Amino acid sequence: MKRIKVSNNVIRRLPRYLRKLDDLKANGVSRISSFSLGQQLGLTPSQIRQDFSCFGEFGQQGYGYNVAALRDEIASILGMNRGFKAILVGVGNIGHALMDNFCFSEWGFTLAAAFDIDPAIVGTTTNGVTVRSMDELLDYLADNQIDVAVLTVPKEAAAAVAKLLCDNGIRAIWNFTNVELTEPNSPTLVENIHFSDSLLSLGYFVAERYDEEAAHAARLERMEKAKEQ
Amino acid sequence: MKRIKVSNNVIRRLPRYLRKLDDLKANGVSRISSFSLGQQLGLTPSQIRQDFSCFGEFGQQGYGYNVAALRDEIASILGMNRGFKAILVGVGNIGHALMDNFCFSEWGFTLAAAFDIDPAIVGTTTNGVTVRSMDELLDYLADNQIDVAVLTVPKEAAAAVAKLLCDNGIRAIWNFTNVELTEPNSPTLVENIHFSDSLLSLGYFVAERYDEEAAHAARLERMEKAKEQ
Repeated sequence: MKRIKVSNNVIRRLPRYLRKLDDLKANGVSRISSFSLGQQLGLTPSQIRQDFSCFGEFGQQGYGYNVAALRDEIASILGMNRGFKAILVGVGNIGHALMDNFCFSEWGFTLAAAFDIDPAIVGTTTNGVTVRSMDELLDYLADNQIDVAVLTVPKEAAAAVAKLLCDNGIRAIWNFTNVELTEPNSPTLVENIHFSDSLLSLGYFVAERYDEEAAHAARLERMEKAKEQ
Repeated sequence: MKRIKVSNNVIRRLPRYLRKLDDLKANGVSRISSFSLGQQLGLTPSQIRQDFSCFGEFGQQGYGYNVAALRDEIASILGMNRGFKAILVGVGNIGHALMDNFCFSEWGFTLAAAFDIDPAIVGTTTNGVTVRSMDELLDYLADNQIDVAVLTVPKEAAAAVAKLLCDNGIRAIWNFTNVELTEPNSPTLVENIHFSDSLLSLGYFVAERYDEEAAHAARLERMEKAKEQ
């Protein structure tokens, strides 16, 4: 597949398309128009056609999209069929939650190993993955081709562990530490899960709603007063 | 403050600005130009000026932004000074990780209560919040003004618990269940943490890099061959 530079916004929508198409497939829908897909995702049909046109021609004018075929195309664009291997570093609450509940294989990843410094955690097994000691990390990275490191160490350790990983061949980090890891223009790919950004955005929308309701109530009150006069 | 409709992209950048400004403040920077702020965030200066212009005039031509003042403006726009109250429903791994590690108060929220159905978990206390039984939830919601519910129940329970919350006055949900909760046009605000979307986006970038490197290697090989002939 030839790659063209695709905007970040389009890339960020691909997983949403994938989830929706999985959902449609599970519900027995085999074909869908860009209009109907757009309606279900809160996007315009032309937005959807434009997004997909970045990667080729998937639909047929007047017939819509084949759900299964489109789903597989998007999965392939996302690299889900490449057999990516991940390791997880830091088996605290979040690390353990991911090992326990997050189905890496559903998204095309194998969680190959996990590492921690705590002797009480080293040696425990979750979902078939046994936690190794951090002492084994460098040997492990030397012996295995790993595509992504999931970074779930405490904040204080984030920068040092990230550097250790990058110095030993890791070029992509899924970062749960809420610490900005890289300088601009660093060659390491970092994808951040910023819980706080998400909560703050929600806070914005809540505040906006309260303001709108207050403004609405004030308008009603002014109208009532005007009537009384 | 009068609110105008601000694009989702701008709203999503506000928490990033906030984090960066907190960081600058902590490092003793009191004034910054849109050029330098942009450089540190991978944005153009005009993008930054445009974003802030949605909310008023924060900078002074030629003098840049006052870091502390801009930080407080953005915090206020995000509703961080409104005393939002949250409850958390479902104290499994993720729920517990949030109670243990996520500093709600740092972002202007009070985590007022947590709920679970498991008798083994009910009654335990994390960071000063004692887990209550789900049996107490409706009474609690009737007695307390809650702005946001953090939904960390298992997937299977997500839809039913979300409905219960909405039917009892909750109008904003921070959703960790990876289940799409609402119909389009629902009045409930839902902010999703989709771990998989984030990992898939990272997968896209990794795949893109591998493709670029393969293409580069193929080009080099062709050039070598051409030289040999």
